[in-house]
Amino acid sequence: MKLLDDAGVTYAQGYRAAAVHCGIRKKALDLALIVSDVPAVAAGMFTRNRCCAAPIIVARRHLAHKVTRGILVNSGNANAATGAGGIRAAETCLREAARRLGCAPTELLVASTGIIGVPLPVEKIVGALDALVAGLAPENGARAAEAIMTTDTFPKQRACSVRLRAGTVRLGGIAKGAGMIMPNMATMLAFITCDARIGRTRWQRLLRDAVQASFNRITVDGDTSTNDCVLALANGASGVAVGQDEEAALAEALQAVCLELAHLIVRDGEGATKFVTVTVEGCRRERDADAIARTVANSPLVKTALTGCNPNWGRVIAAAGRAGVAFDPERMDVYFNDVLTVKGGCSAGASKAVLDELFKQKEITIRIVLHEGKAKATVWTTDLSHEYVAINVAYS
Amino acid sequence: MKLLDDAGVTYAQGYRAAAVHCGIRKKALDLALIVSDVPAVAAGMFTRNRCCAAPIIVARRHLAHKVTRGILVNSGNANAATGAGGIRAAETCLREAARRLGCAPTELLVASTGIIGVPLPVEKIVGALDALVAGLAPENGARAAEAIMTTDTFPKQRACSVRLRAGTVRLGGIAKGAGMIMPNMATMLAFITCDARIGRTRWQRLLRDAVQASFNRITVDGDTSTNDCVLALANGASGVAVGQDEEAALAEALQAVCLELAHLIVRDGEGATKFVTVTVEGCRRERDADAIARTVANSPLVKTALTGCNPNWGRVIAAAGRAGVAFDPERMDVYFNDVLTVKGGCSAGASKAVLDELFKQKEITIRIVLHEGKAKATVWTTDLSHEYVAINVAYS
Repeated sequence: MKLLDDAGVTYAQGYRAAAVHCGIRKKALDLALIVSDVPAVAAGMFTRNRCCAAPIIVARRHLAHKVTRGILVNSGNANAATGAGGIRAAETCLREAARRLGCAPTELLVASTGIIGVPLPVEKIVGALDALVAGLAPENGARAAEAIMTTDTFPKQRACSVRLRAGTVRLGGIAKGAGMIMPNMATMLAFITCDARIGRTRWQRLLRDAVQASFNRITVDGDTSTNDCVLALANGASGVAVGQDEEAALAEALQAVCLELAHLIVRDGEGATKFVTVTVEGCRRERDADAIARTVANSPLVKTALTGCNPNWGRVIAAAGRAGVAFDPERMDVYFNDVLTVKGGCSAGASKAVLDELFKQKEITIRIVLHEGKAKATVWTTDLSHEYVAINVAYS
Repeated sequence: MKLLDDAGVTYAQGYRAAAVHCGIRKKALDLALIVSDVPAVAAGMFTRNRCCAAPIIVARRHLAHKVTRGILVNSGNANAATGAGGIRAAETCLREAARRLGCAPTELLVASTGIIGVPLPVEKIVGALDALVAGLAPENGARAAEAIMTTDTFPKQRACSVRLRAGTVRLGGIAKGAGMIMPNMATMLAFITCDARIGRTRWQRLLRDAVQASFNRITVDGDTSTNDCVLALANGASGVAVGQDEEAALAEALQAVCLELAHLIVRDGEGATKFVTVTVEGCRRERDADAIARTVANSPLVKTALTGCNPNWGRVIAAAGRAGVAFDPERMDVYFNDVLTVKGGCSAGASKAVLDELFKQKEITIRIVLHEGKAKATVWTTDLSHEYVAINVAYS
């Protein structure tokens, strides 16, 4: 699957985007709009945080409608912990945007990211809508990717095309991440657009599967945000309907875009100096493998060892051992990249020089093999650096 | 309950202690022995980490014997992930110590703390046993507290006495903590001695309850070690038997000593700049309150906000919301100390100046009230500072 890195949310046919600085953030772009020229079907995956934000509640509600025309996103303010007023604020923004786009408010979705507990500055957003709508163009996908950033250090977009019997369909997406990235739901914002013709139910299923295998398998700090969501539109503008037997090809493309965006989020994790793959194999059940992988990936002691380029495998097995999974530690092997480091729960006598060299690399795979079954799981994460603490001590 | 801070593991009658530098660590005391002059009953609580260390396996096994004479502890090497050789190493040390003390090896317990995966230097320990046994004295409790330290910055001991019908009983303890402090088992080393006359089963029950309410309610970084244990001896040297109706008084004293030692561990948490109490009230079930309290206490985003003296209550409710507990966020109140900061899930409009001042203090209580039931739970924790990362990036 070849992915384009210079295209994103307007790669597919029939989409336009725009971004402006409406004044929520001090200087950066902070308001984006993604619009489909024709009514699209929409799918969504949302945070499982109990304290979910107003835009999550509104977007979920609007997803129940059959067609969608676009997505309005702001950065700098999460519109979370803002009660009924927050929901009214999100609805006002959508009503005003819908009026300018000539669609129903329920045909628009909404997402927000930023500080929690501060009322959304509705007047700033509404005041910028004319300029935003006027700026809609297929060229502005990258600007939208920029406008949704918060502590991200670079915009994230990817796209690809898939050849089907009746023609080629295109899809692309943008994402933002950085902090509050964690297991058990998307943990960031991502927006995907596609020009295939496909039914709502199938599109939702494809998105769910793609998110489970990508955004839900990354973790920066174990914190899930109140605002995480992935929204995906399919507008049929290519004129290419996706046959049941062709669904796998589209699913593969969707998953590839989601996975690459998810990996970009990890690479841009707050203060990240390493890209870490944690794979757990040989478990009795997939959820056991998953629990161990996530516990290792989120362990502050493992993360700081990675920052310190310190092949402290004791911290890896200690984290695995406290994941709440029953296993026999005397059968556990641990590999760093391809180097067998723990054999049967004890040191495998790997060369310290080799491990030291390996731990200096920017990418590292921790592979734990339990030899108790066939289930496995992978998660991707970062280390825990001085920089992470500095960013989050300072951020308000 | 008045606690003494200048007495510890030799405060109760009939106990002696000793500590030497045997050479595992570069300079510091690294080997301690605590001995009861007469056979004692022993109780123990152990890590739930699946990858538990050799001394845990040996101590658990020896606890099955009816009487105990002492505890041998080393710092600098965890004797963990050392396989069958690690168990033989621990047994050799105990056999040699028992020979010098004139008791059976099974009458001794063992504990270790330090680096994982490195074979225990048995010859260094055995070579120091003559000096160790020769040094046994009631005056050396504080030296034992020093010898069990690793990244701790101060030794931890507390003691107290309890007046019962037949006379006074004394008890005291020492502990070490610092890193790898986490929910779901003691998460550190602690040794308690008592001169009451009490049966084994009752003593074990009292210890279990005390540990659940103290050591198991603290967390520094969410990591549980492979070596955590709390061992407690009761030798009857006071001649005072504890009547069933007096058990509560002894339980209270034991819990007070354990709780204070646990708090000392939090205060000495790696890089800790704050002592944080997280209380969750008004839950349907205690385990719900516990899950929310631990999630908030372990959240890197909450911890870094505390380090930054930043009253970012959004991070607190976001952490509460992802604890896996069903609750209505619109009924949630959050207090920082006594200041109502979140009311019904939204800002309560507390003065920023007041909150800023409050967050500069060294001690802070985060109280979350859900108004859904009567269950509650408290955990104690620290913040996440630059210093924590610096310590754990460097430690090997």
